[in-house]
Amino acid sequence: MGKKIAAFGEVMMRLQVPGYDLLSQAGTLVYSFSGTGVNVMSALARYGHDGYLVTRLPDNPLGDAAAANLRKLGVAQKFVVRGGSSIGMYFLENGFGARPSRVTYAHRLESSFNTAPDNVYDFAAIAGQLDAAHFCGITLAMNDSVRSQLLRFAEAVKARGGIVAFDCNYRPSLWGENGYGKAKPYYEKMLGLADIVMMNEKDAMHVLGMPAKAATREGQLEELIPEAASRYGIAAAAGTHRSVNGDNTHSLRGYLYKNGAFHYSDLLTFSVYDRIGAGDAYASGILHGELSGFAPERTVRYAAAAAMLAHTTTGDTPMASEREIERAMTQAAGDVER
Amino acid sequence: MGKKIAAFGEVMMRLQVPGYDLLSQAGTLVYSFSGTGVNVMSALARYGHDGYLVTRLPDNPLGDAAAANLRKLGVAQKFVVRGGSSIGMYFLENGFGARPSRVTYAHRLESSFNTAPDNVYDFAAIAGQLDAAHFCGITLAMNDSVRSQLLRFAEAVKARGGIVAFDCNYRPSLWGENGYGKAKPYYEKMLGLADIVMMNEKDAMHVLGMPAKAATREGQLEELIPEAASRYGIAAAAGTHRSVNGDNTHSLRGYLYKNGAFHYSDLLTFSVYDRIGAGDAYASGILHGELSGFAPERTVRYAAAAAMLAHTTTGDTPMASEREIERAMTQAAGDVER
Amino acid sequence: MGKKIAAFGEVMMRLQVPGYDLLSQAGTLVYSFSGTGVNVMSALARYGHDGYLVTRLPDNPLGDAAAANLRKLGVAQKFVVRGGSSIGMYFLENGFGARPSRVTYAHRLESSFNTAPDNVYDFAAIAGQLDAAHFCGITLAMNDSVRSQLLRFAEAVKARGGIVAFDCNYRPSLWGENGYGKAKPYYEKMLGLADIVMMNEKDAMHVLGMPAKAATREGQLEELIPEAASRYGIAAAAGTHRSVNGDNTHSLRGYLYKNGAFHYSDLLTFSVYDRIGAGDAYASGILHGELSGFAPERTVRYAAAAAMLAHTTTGDTPMASEREIERAMTQAAGDVER
Amino acid sequence: MGKKIAAFGEVMMRLQVPGYDLLSQAGTLVYSFSGTGVNVMSALARYGHDGYLVTRLPDNPLGDAAAANLRKLGVAQKFVVRGGSSIGMYFLENGFGARPSRVTYAHRLESSFNTAPDNVYDFAAIAGQLDAAHFCGITLAMNDSVRSQLLRFAEAVKARGGIVAFDCNYRPSLWGENGYGKAKPYYEKMLGLADIVMMNEKDAMHVLGMPAKAATREGQLEELIPEAASRYGIAAAAGTHRSVNGDNTHSLRGYLYKNGAFHYSDLLTFSVYDRIGAGDAYASGILHGELSGFAPERTVRYAAAAAMLAHTTTGDTPMASEREIERAMTQAAGDVER
Amino acid sequence: MGKKIAAFGEVMMRLQVPGYDLLSQAGTLVYSFSGTGVNVMSALARYGHDGYLVTRLPDNPLGDAAAANLRKLGVAQKFVVRGGSSIGMYFLENGFGARPSRVTYAHRLESSFNTAPDNVYDFAAIAGQLDAAHFCGITLAMNDSVRSQLLRFAEAVKARGGIVAFDCNYRPSLWGENGYGKAKPYYEKMLGLADIVMMNEKDAMHVLGMPAKAATREGQLEELIPEAASRYGIAAAAGTHRSVNGDNTHSLRGYLYKNGAFHYSDLLTFSVYDRIGAGDAYASGILHGELSGFAPERTVRYAAAAAMLAHTTTGDTPMASEREIERAMTQAAGDVER
Amino acid sequence: MGKKIAAFGEVMMRLQVPGYDLLSQAGTLVYSFSGTGVNVMSALARYGHDGYLVTRLPDNPLGDAAAANLRKLGVAQKFVVRGGSSIGMYFLENGFGARPSRVTYAHRLESSFNTAPDNVYDFAAIAGQLDAAHFCGITLAMNDSVRSQLLRFAEAVKARGGIVAFDCNYRPSLWGENGYGKAKPYYEKMLGLADIVMMNEKDAMHVLGMPAKAATREGQLEELIPEAASRYGIAAAAGTHRSVNGDNTHSLRGYLYKNGAFHYSDLLTFSVYDRIGAGDAYASGILHGELSGFAPERTVRYAAAAAMLAHTTTGDTPMASEREIERAMTQAAGDVER
Repeated sequence: MGKKIAAFGEVMMRLQVPGYDLLSQAGTLVYSFSGTGVNVMSALARYGHDGYLVTRLPDNPLGDAAAANLRKLGVAQKFVVRGGSSIGMYFLENGFGARPSRVTYAHRLESSFNTAPDNVYDFAAIAGQLDAAHFCGITLAMNDSVRSQLLRFAEAVKARGGIVAFDCNYRPSLWGENGYGKAKPYYEKMLGLADIVMMNEKDAMHVLGMPAKAATREGQLEELIPEAASRYGIAAAAGTHRSVNGDNTHSLRGYLYKNGAFHYSDLLTFSVYDRIGAGDAYASGILHGELSGFAPERTVRYAAAAAMLAHTTTGDTPMASEREIERAMTQAAGDVER
Repeated sequence: MGKKIAAFGEVMMRLQVPGYDLLSQAGTLVYSFSGTGVNVMSALARYGHDGYLVTRLPDNPLGDAAAANLRKLGVAQKFVVRGGSSIGMYFLENGFGARPSRVTYAHRLESSFNTAPDNVYDFAAIAGQLDAAHFCGITLAMNDSVRSQLLRFAEAVKARGGIVAFDCNYRPSLWGENGYGKAKPYYEKMLGLADIVMMNEKDAMHVLGMPAKAATREGQLEELIPEAASRYGIAAAAGTHRSVNGDNTHSLRGYLYKNGAFHYSDLLTFSVYDRIGAGDAYASGILHGELSGFAPERTVRYAAAAAMLAHTTTGDTPMASEREIERAMTQAAGDVER
Repeated sequence: MGKKIAAFGEVMMRLQVPGYDLLSQAGTLVYSFSGTGVNVMSALARYGHDGYLVTRLPDNPLGDAAAANLRKLGVAQKFVVRGGSSIGMYFLENGFGARPSRVTYAHRLESSFNTAPDNVYDFAAIAGQLDAAHFCGITLAMNDSVRSQLLRFAEAVKARGGIVAFDCNYRPSLWGENGYGKAKPYYEKMLGLADIVMMNEKDAMHVLGMPAKAATREGQLEELIPEAASRYGIAAAAGTHRSVNGDNTHSLRGYLYKNGAFHYSDLLTFSVYDRIGAGDAYASGILHGELSGFAPERTVRYAAAAAMLAHTTTGDTPMASEREIERAMTQAAGDVER
Repeated sequence: MGKKIAAFGEVMMRLQVPGYDLLSQAGTLVYSFSGTGVNVMSALARYGHDGYLVTRLPDNPLGDAAAANLRKLGVAQKFVVRGGSSIGMYFLENGFGARPSRVTYAHRLESSFNTAPDNVYDFAAIAGQLDAAHFCGITLAMNDSVRSQLLRFAEAVKARGGIVAFDCNYRPSLWGENGYGKAKPYYEKMLGLADIVMMNEKDAMHVLGMPAKAATREGQLEELIPEAASRYGIAAAAGTHRSVNGDNTHSLRGYLYKNGAFHYSDLLTFSVYDRIGAGDAYASGILHGELSGFAPERTVRYAAAAAMLAHTTTGDTPMASEREIERAMTQAAGDVER
Repeated sequence: MGKKIAAFGEVMMRLQVPGYDLLSQAGTLVYSFSGTGVNVMSALARYGHDGYLVTRLPDNPLGDAAAANLRKLGVAQKFVVRGGSSIGMYFLENGFGARPSRVTYAHRLESSFNTAPDNVYDFAAIAGQLDAAHFCGITLAMNDSVRSQLLRFAEAVKARGGIVAFDCNYRPSLWGENGYGKAKPYYEKMLGLADIVMMNEKDAMHVLGMPAKAATREGQLEELIPEAASRYGIAAAAGTHRSVNGDNTHSLRGYLYKNGAFHYSDLLTFSVYDRIGAGDAYASGILHGELSGFAPERTVRYAAAAAMLAHTTTGDTPMASEREIERAMTQAAGDVER
Repeated sequence: MGKKIAAFGEVMMRLQVPGYDLLSQAGTLVYSFSGTGVNVMSALARYGHDGYLVTRLPDNPLGDAAAANLRKLGVAQKFVVRGGSSIGMYFLENGFGARPSRVTYAHRLESSFNTAPDNVYDFAAIAGQLDAAHFCGITLAMNDSVRSQLLRFAEAVKARGGIVAFDCNYRPSLWGENGYGKAKPYYEKMLGLADIVMMNEKDAMHVLGMPAKAATREGQLEELIPEAASRYGIAAAAGTHRSVNGDNTHSLRGYLYKNGAFHYSDLLTFSVYDRIGAGDAYASGILHGELSGFAPERTVRYAAAAAMLAHTTTGDTPMASEREIERAMTQAAGDVER
């Protein structure tokens, strides 16, 4: 039976140059609407849960377009408020081989979400209708008002016995100079509230300032995650290690730390079509496993397969069904299905 | 000098989602018209033969569009009749890497071909104008009326001294439950009529129910094909073994069994752009070799190169010219031609 | 406060040739999902009601795409069931000036909706959750099973005190030879159940066989509608008269007959971009006015303005908001809004 | 029963900027293959005749593309030869309202047709298989070699009892300075050979240097055409008068002069989508009427309706079927057909 | 001989939904870069002047794309500075008939231009290289810093003997509540500096608060413009009156007041393809006439024809050449040019 | 500080079939304007130099489009003259895997550049404004008039102390039969004038007829280049060795021979998106290094990285900035940049 879960976060308009042209060469853009919260809620809705978004959209044709596309993705809009006149945007130029993809953010500060009045969401009422809520470190990086809203919502969920999930998702460019120092107190508050945390050893070392003895990232992970889980009372921690290979493929291994034990997926190596949002697919898989009571081994393999498939579809938002993920957990790539 | 050959079969409208979007994400489709008979006749026309299609197209704009596109492909329409109002369709979503392509068939039962009245084709008159005719196991799977038409046409060709070619092309999803049992009598009739047969060890084992001692597919092939050829009086049998590799490439080796000897192409490994219809390209190569009196070694190498190139062009229908196939038989991939 | 209303009907896949090419010239199609029920429910959802669709969609990528696009249009899917493998389709070639648009239907008989098992919808339970339900004469033309489902659903709604709306929408090509005679008994049953009916003098004369003395369509309307309303106990009857002008414009006047009086909109003359679905926009306006308790004069003007605007947007489904319709009721076309 | 008719002329590649962009704004082009001969043969094939083209196409991918598209248009290629490496081209920028469309020709001199060796066509053999042949004044403007080929072909047809049709189609930009003087002797030769001629009073006055007393074009037409017909022994002369109206519509009236009498179509006024090739549609209609033995009144009305419809479809080549033309001869523009 | 002229103003990214879809229906956008300064400088460059833009573009791929496209439009970038990270944007949904076009602005406050440091432009040095400069009331509406920059630049040009042109272009939505009152002092300063002013009677009445006795806009214009010209020392004032007609056409008449006399263009009525930027085309025509010493009657007719043609091309920026404008001054719409 | 450099050469219109369709399958083309001179000047402009083109463009919409696109690429047009009516073109069909890309040239002989009158360029005046000029062997292959212009320009630059750069770029298909013999005298003249030469051992062996003892291309290079440099007085010679690998990657190593020593880049292996123009990117890198006084090791590594990146962007013209090239010199392919 599906659970009721909400995400708090901004809706971004993704404006992508088609094919491999640069923005200075092309004349058209493909647009869609995403964001960590959108991506995770859409995936969970696809897996059978009720996924709500708590956000603010502009009251104009841009907001109408965002709302229509979120509906298409299966995201419930009962808790979406309308107001303001702007939406965060990013422009994406696809890389090819030796040329990396480029993301250019535009106009995040003016967005309806980031300029929402403090009392615009009724967090207590919302929390009362939920089994769980999902938060992301990107939202923490926005401004004081948004940070305060996020924390109040997380506290309200916690107070009503809901599960709090938090994805560290630290983005250096958003926090600016001395970012780790600025971010640490907010991250610590959220880790203290969170039951399920998406993180890896880099978050522990850089944001939380935990020293590591091990030299490899694998060693650092096994050294630091149990310590962080213990320090902040985290029931389940999960994340991935990714390598970008020379031949247009990536390799990825997921981990889930729970009840004192690490569980790993296989190392998956796969061709990459659209890399953005794959981390949200992994998080969605972990949340689905945890909300549905999967065994940890199954959860981590499900999440890794979901992340792998998210690299093969268009857009930030995961599109694979539960059936497709399960098939990918067991089969090699095959011939056309007909 | 080119031969006169006809194929009996359905024209399908292929509706392909462009790029790598899913049908639930996209808003446009690219359409073309194909079918085993279309593909083989178009390729043979490109190699210098007269390729006719014997089929029924709807008498409406869908039929007009099919007819215009078949003309473009070089398929002669002297034996095409018009009537009914519908055409078989399939939707194609391109896979990427770990995500396989998906084919969704629509509306095959209502098609003008599958609902053609029994007397709509004058098989005797048609057969009298041909050197050869080509049939496909997909057509056998449709319904009793179509099966009966197919067999009557094959018999008429045989009776007038024409060459009968038959591609087993067994599709489990079309025959449904207990499919092998249902299919066997029709396949046996066609094998009894056919001079040239496209098949491999799986057809022998599953459709014809022939037991194999060998453990590998290569062994089974060499064990069963001579037996089948002998049992049904087949002059030439041919087919391929395909492997789907992890890195977006396929490997393919063709065989031709004739006069008691097996002839093989090299194992070709190549990147795949559009996999559908590649089997028809192989069949076209075998037919061209046989109709033109090639030595068997050349025929099998020609057919394998034609199949390889068919993976590199858009659409189901092979587009390579004889000159391009011959170059591919001898050269590695090269730099741009200018 | 919005009402809860459901429509019973088929979802159609519209496959439109872009621009002014013919199907035999083009190579791409633009697709969307519509149907009378879809159009009316989407419009009512846009006006603030809860609009549900009661239908059956295939359990494959075609069904997934339909479901996603219906969500985007705001149509609630609580009562949508999945099963079967096919969806009704129509191809649209845009006309230009002296060349009329062409619609080619495909594969309606095989559709999941038209082949739904009898017990697949729980009409009693659905009716219990509704204020109103909407039915269409196109659905009546399908087959006995669908006709029987439609009537059972209408009776269930009526039995629970809900409002029954019926759009006569007689399509000669669907009923075939002696269509009026075949259709009449079903239409009479539905008119007997319906509170709100979309019809005009032609339905009265041809389907119901009512003789008219008046020579003009305006006279026939005023003569026959009151008689039909009285005979079948219809609370409100509404419809339009349309003229196609020589200069790419249409003229349209709406009527609403209620409580013994006729109410008319102005005669609106406007340029036409996409004509299909405009009748559904008119019906939606009438339903919205009736469900919301508008005065009849306002209802008919609202419905006519909604119909006019539906000619100016892409696709079958009306896209105008209540605010836009109200502005169109009072203003002439203006300069760009910025 | 259809007739066998061939056209002698160049195949042009039309490269059109989509929408209303200029060549300096856009980045894509839509291409097709046309030419007076292509257009007339395609239309006659659609009306049930066998339409052949006598031309030379390059032996490279441009020639392959032209051949495939001519097949699609129904033009028979038995008499097409391959050689040379180039094809005539023109770029089309669509005008809008006050801004006229622009055509920019490129590279006509180098084309395979215009550089064909003298003996490349076997005109005697070709003429022996034809009922009629069609020629165009544009071809006369190319160079001495092509002019000589044209005349030899026309003489061969005439010698074998075939009908010779000639469209004056005088293009000032192709003949350059003192064009009328240069053109006159060739036009006179062709008029002497031709049975059916497309011309109007301007051709008579400017190319043939015939003085006119009347002041209006209608008067000049009735004054000069009988004189020209008599002087050159023309059995049937036909043409149109066109007016470009201010509101994006054109008005057109066709005439046919035969057996000493003028026959006129109605004055047709219609919206214009693609104007190029409409003259060829008119010529096709006249030829069809003459080849099929229509009464002159029907022929001229058929040709005018065919010309009108050719303004409503994409590309230079007429796309209307005989049934559509006949409906347009009798009906006003109507609502969508479904 | 061309003059050197610069415009001070923001570059806007125009993001247009193709065709007639709404932003909530479509998935692609066509983008271009414009702005009043861009449009006027591009047109003047096309007429033979050196047109510079003084602005600030972001130092990222958005700025690179703007710079490349401005180069394409012929705008000289010697005085463009790079810095900041954002660019003003607007989304355009094309209206059709009764449905007006919609413009949605996004993110203007954060733009590199509107956040430029005060000392980023060396106005004295720039002014020293110019014959004239162009300013727009839209820029005045931005913020105090930009207003101060604009005025300093205008003063620097004036001080060095350059011509100052000012387009009132009052936009109510940009000035907000009590906008006229806020705007008046800045407009008065600019009118005091300006030699050539684009304005009409509405600017005089609303922004400048001048009372009018006449009842018609024509009367008000002739009453107020001479008074304003006299009060602020304006050498030449010019503008247009526009009417939006019911049939997708607009009517426009231009005026030029100079040396105490009014000069008018004919009333031009024309079909509209892209209305945005047409006012800038008119201003460009006036500036070209004034900079080139045209007689006032020719200037106003040139400007009106330029404005008319700007409605027929894609994008905000005028694309017509001097030759095309001159032909449009004398000819009716004609047939295709070839 | 940037240098002033001009290239003498033809502008080509590139007409590319989108995706992987053949010209006979598709209906649209993507066009751009390039040429060796365009590519090298655009790259040098991007690196901070003033890059001029000396060429002749048609005085029609094709020329306008070329001029606008060259401006967009940053190529200065002070020395571009307008006249004639045609432009060189090539059609590009993208290969895939085993199917090579195809280039079909069209209409080069008629182009405005190749038919330019002898006195149309004032080479003396142009040379006086330059630090360097760039020439290409493709231009030498055109006709006597163009060859004579090229040599006169090179001599004028040399006479005024400018640097002469020459890219051998021998194209067999352009020189025809006995091409090496025809080309040799012109190549020898240019090598005598040139300071910087793009060449490799094949040019030395085939065009210059120098015999080689070494068996490998690496050995031949080290044997012949010093000899050629000495014989013709070449200060710097540079070029690449390329291998086309089986897996859609190419490998490339650059060399620079200067002051008696060879300098090599690493062997770079990379995925290829658009191969055409990569040689020009390499030449641009060499010229930039030489003009800017880089150490030879840095120059050759810069040029090789520039060539590698040119394979990853759309179109013939290199699009990478100096910053991007420098990053590619030091880093492996990375994750998305955001």
